Amino acid sequence: MTREELIQQIRTKKTFLCVGLDPDSEKIPKHLLEEEGDPIYEFNKKIIDATAPYCVSFKPNSAFYEAYGLSGVGSLEKTIRYIKTNYPDHLLIADAKRGDIGNTSSMYARAFFKRLNADAITVAPYMGSDSVKPFLQFENKWTIVLGLTSNEGSSDFQQLKIEGKDFYMHVIETCAQWGTENNMMFVVGATKAKLLEDIRKIIPKHFLLIPGIGAQGGSLQDVCKYGLTPDVGLLVNSSRGIIYASTSKNFAEKAAEEAEKIANEMKLYL
Amino acid sequence: MTREELIQQIRTKKTFLCVGLDPDSEKIPKHLLEEEGDPIYEFNKKIIDATAPYCVSFKPNSAFYEAYGLSGVGSLEKTIRYIKTNYPDHLLIADAKRGDIGNTSSMYARAFFKRLNADAITVAPYMGSDSVKPFLQFENKWTIVLGLTSNEGSSDFQQLKIEGKDFYMHVIETCAQWGTENNMMFVVGATKAKLLEDIRKIIPKHFLLIPGIGAQGGSLQDVCKYGLTPDVGLLVNSSRGIIYASTSKNFAEKAAEEAEKIANEMKLYL
Repeated sequence: MTREELIQQIRTKKTFLCVGLDPDSEKIPKHLLEEEGDPIYEFNKKIIDATAPYCVSFKPNSAFYEAYGLSGVGSLEKTIRYIKTNYPDHLLIADAKRGDIGNTSSMYARAFFKRLNADAITVAPYMGSDSVKPFLQFENKWTIVLGLTSNEGSSDFQQLKIEGKDFYMHVIETCAQWGTENNMMFVVGATKAKLLEDIRKIIPKHFLLIPGIGAQGGSLQDVCKYGLTPDVGLLVNSSRGIIYASTSKNFAEKAAEEAEKIANEMKLYL
Repeated sequence: MTREELIQQIRTKKTFLCVGLDPDSEKIPKHLLEEEGDPIYEFNKKIIDATAPYCVSFKPNSAFYEAYGLSGVGSLEKTIRYIKTNYPDHLLIADAKRGDIGNTSSMYARAFFKRLNADAITVAPYMGSDSVKPFLQFENKWTIVLGLTSNEGSSDFQQLKIEGKDFYMHVIETCAQWGTENNMMFVVGATKAKLLEDIRKIIPKHFLLIPGIGAQGGSLQDVCKYGLTPDVGLLVNSSRGIIYASTSKNFAEKAAEEAEKIANEMKLYL
């Protein structure tokens, strides 16, 4: 998916919501576990159908599938195929946080972009240029580099000072030179919204993937105040707040309500 | 596997070699691809049987399996089961370089330690404490944190100076406080052997996983000169140099020869 297509989707639907698909068998509705078949896939399909009108992107996190071994990876494949078939205009982000030496990162790029056919993948920058660049070789695919993450541990290393500047600012500045705003995005946690002001000074045009609203406590209003650009430039993710809004039979309906609530708030800022 | 058991294996076999299992269908012997069944698994089994006497550890890199989708992940599962069944005294390292926010890292820990039953996993430290600590909750399992990697891109971020000290030194020092020498190791590339001298000042006892000899050009002699401890404290990995020593029918024999060559050199330094 190109940058233009993504912006067009956001303008048309008036939402920049990304729904995180992180299925956990201890949290998905009990009645799904009792049915035949693949409860994770069944759960995802219903969440996807219900929330699709209110979002422009879906983001399955690979960990939640790998935790169930081969059958979990199968559920991920099926989920991605379902989205690509039924909602081809939604940006499909594989949240995998991969990164390795050059020839190995190429294998990960092949796994996610060719095998799984994801539109985007999240990438960990610690190993530097040859760990990130192989992902940039694929046309109309997106590499989403971890910048400043939403979790508590982000202060351990990302916010260490280097020559008076936070480490994550070096990471963003350096990685931005390897790609363009047409094939690279950055992860910046909603829990650090105020810092978006400085980030926008070095990457005024790049799209940012913003996790951390909902369960993690970030504010959509603050994110928009400091992060919005003339081309929107934001994809704001919510996972648990939407997909576990209810664990009863009406879970999909409740997920749609939560997604719609966020989308309605987004309209105010667009 | 405990630290004592690992040291015992090294002392008994007089080798601290780790064989990297990175199967690439473009490089494995053609005749295997023409047979029925699972060529990656068949390749691995023969490599494992041939090299087991000369090594104390096997390290499949997840990327090389994920690149083949579901069938590749199946090959990884079978490979791990084969090693755990037939070579239970070998440390099984899942080279996966995972790391995510706390609840997601827990899922990865479950995937690799419980589902796959690996003894160890490599972890990327960028996201800080809550991304690393969930892996440390498992008894007799090892968390191997990326310190200074062997690739060219390692200089982009890992060697930035923070208060006069390289960033990777901060990472090692900080992460070392989250675990102990009984459940944590660090990755340090053989291509940076001289730097092991300073690393040993802050972690004199931790085991180090050292990639980068062979195809990547690091020297075993230098690694031992600067990195060996009274308890050995090193696992030196070679992947391509061993497993692709030959692409003919005698590939396993040739792999064994390469592994034996390295093990013989290791004897000199023990």
